[in-house]
Amino acid sequence: MTDVLELTKELINRRSVTPEDAGCQDFMKAWLAKSGFENETMVFEDTTNLWSRRGTDGPVFCFAGHTDVVPSGPEDAWQTPPFVATERDGNLHGRGAADMKGSLAAMLAATRQFVADYPDHHGSIAYLITSDEEGPFINGTTRVIDTLEARNEKITWCVVGEPSSTDVVGDVVKNGRRGSLTGDLVVKGIQGHVAYPHLARNPVHQAAPALDELAQAHWDNGNDFFPPTSFQISNIHGGTGAGNVIPGELHVCFNFRFSTEVTDKQLIAKVEDILDKHGLEYEIKWTFNGQPFLTDHGDLLTATQKAIASEMDFDTVLSTAGGTSDGRFIAPTGAQVVELGPVNATIHKIDEHVRIKDLYHLERIYYRLLENLLT
Amino acid sequence: MTDVLELTKELINRRSVTPEDAGCQDFMKAWLAKSGFENETMVFEDTTNLWSRRGTDGPVFCFAGHTDVVPSGPEDAWQTPPFVATERDGNLHGRGAADMKGSLAAMLAATRQFVADYPDHHGSIAYLITSDEEGPFINGTTRVIDTLEARNEKITWCVVGEPSSTDVVGDVVKNGRRGSLTGDLVVKGIQGHVAYPHLARNPVHQAAPALDELAQAHWDNGNDFFPPTSFQISNIHGGTGAGNVIPGELHVCFNFRFSTEVTDKQLIAKVEDILDKHGLEYEIKWTFNGQPFLTDHGDLLTATQKAIASEMDFDTVLSTAGGTSDGRFIAPTGAQVVELGPVNATIHKIDEHVRIKDLYHLERIYYRLLENLLT
Repeated sequence: MTDVLELTKELINRRSVTPEDAGCQDFMKAWLAKSGFENETMVFEDTTNLWSRRGTDGPVFCFAGHTDVVPSGPEDAWQTPPFVATERDGNLHGRGAADMKGSLAAMLAATRQFVADYPDHHGSIAYLITSDEEGPFINGTTRVIDTLEARNEKITWCVVGEPSSTDVVGDVVKNGRRGSLTGDLVVKGIQGHVAYPHLARNPVHQAAPALDELAQAHWDNGNDFFPPTSFQISNIHGGTGAGNVIPGELHVCFNFRFSTEVTDKQLIAKVEDILDKHGLEYEIKWTFNGQPFLTDHGDLLTATQKAIASEMDFDTVLSTAGGTSDGRFIAPTGAQVVELGPVNATIHKIDEHVRIKDLYHLERIYYRLLENLLT
Repeated sequence: MTDVLELTKELINRRSVTPEDAGCQDFMKAWLAKSGFENETMVFEDTTNLWSRRGTDGPVFCFAGHTDVVPSGPEDAWQTPPFVATERDGNLHGRGAADMKGSLAAMLAATRQFVADYPDHHGSIAYLITSDEEGPFINGTTRVIDTLEARNEKITWCVVGEPSSTDVVGDVVKNGRRGSLTGDLVVKGIQGHVAYPHLARNPVHQAAPALDELAQAHWDNGNDFFPPTSFQISNIHGGTGAGNVIPGELHVCFNFRFSTEVTDKQLIAKVEDILDKHGLEYEIKWTFNGQPFLTDHGDLLTATQKAIASEMDFDTVLSTAGGTSDGRFIAPTGAQVVELGPVNATIHKIDEHVRIKDLYHLERIYYRLLENLLT
């Protein structure tokens, strides 16, 4: 079996809900070993990761991805069972079809063919696969990268198989992602009875002008690849439920999606300046979810654009929009990183599916990428 | 038995947690009937009310109060059982000792003595008693007043037995109360993912400047009897709990305590002006809890000041501070209203108690009031 469609079915039929791998990586290891790869499984806590490499020289071309999928939701709501890959109307249905077992299958099929065609390609081909991309991600790609960095093993070019496309495979490539930073703020007041406001201090009243200033603040102008940095309050809670009690605390959770024009440290400093300026008594806990990254030029981007143009007969669009991905952990090592995978319209939804034709396109795009970079 | 202490014990020993009367009013009715009162029980839904009157002429002097008490909380936490009246160290302990079974007992004892001393007093003496002052209050004093108004039966002077005092009985008399108005505001936005803020509209961001303006607004200057009108946000809630979702709605609950310098209609208009000015899409539900009232001169106030001065040998202080009381329902009929009762330090708390000496003082103050006004 070398067919990308059959490979995708093999993976979908394994119920690998985060952080379960459910044998997907064993299947990949067996496949890769036949093409001369050396497999290295790295288990961290509940997460199974695979680092697999063919060759010892640089440059290193790496396929990155994940075997885990999000839960199916109510299985009854699916038209066909989520963990039984099913063809219908030219599509392949099943959880993970688009995010991202189809991509893994296309990588495997392209690699087998490329190695057969170019057994003496230069550089190395590698796979960096995790079973926890959809979950807390702390024992996944980030720890594999730590291990590689510790032994000074570098990735030159990395293609992450995330479903980057909008209408047809290859129409959009993500060449970067915004950074993400979360703040959990507690503004302290003094609780009291609404009839005796002079004995209390209302944290909602005190925080209102500071929140207004944060909401209206200008953080940067963005750049050619990133929209301006965005601040959003996601949760706000204060009060005991009683209508006659002034709350003692106000809890505010907010998130930054930030461009490469600003750093997390600058954002933290500016927020705390604003809170201080308004004389608030507060505590704040910062959670840093990832630096922004950008691959705005280089061999990988050129090779990707060329591969898509020749396979699909259109020019791809570069984008940095959307949520975070594991690219944020790989790019800081100095690697060039792009994300290229199927159409993302049904990911994380009931009746997730991928166009079967797109799977074959994706396999050939990946093949051309290898060809463009390693021959 | 005519002793105020024994009368207070009789009432405390009846477990009349709102809206239960537990026989307190039957006890009062029997007592008042012996002094020539005509009793009229008015039951509205779960609430028992008593209107009792001696005489048919005006002016009408009315004692107002309630037989219900707030729950005891954990009985184990009390030093003596909350519904067993217990003397200790010169105090009488038990739920309702201060709020306001001691006052009811003092009214009964004073009335018995006054009627014995002045069987031909002029005007009438009345009692307006409810079993739901501490609860939702909708079937209590307000409905008795509606009934009296419908038959054009007027109260001239009303003494509410609420615990008005701070250190010793009579040191403070409430001669008015602020009004209370509650707003429940829902600011509407458009829910979305924090990574795509252009597809969402954050109601927290939109509301922040309006809330700031409301919190800083100047509503009036108050007057000699009222502090300036006060606005307080008591509850604020927005967000799904998830850190990456922009909330679709923001819920804000706020309360006004307002002076006689402004009306509820003016406050509503000004709030809605501010919300409109900030371009908010919102819904608001207003709950009107009572007009402010003020008895700043007249026979009742003079008689009260004189009664306290002669019994206690000090001048009482007039105040309109604190929460609402049933006086708000009686004053709008044109009655002069004051609140005069024991020290309020332990009301609604564990180990509620009243100084036994204060019960005797209060009985004699009430007696002198009757004497000052009806002889």
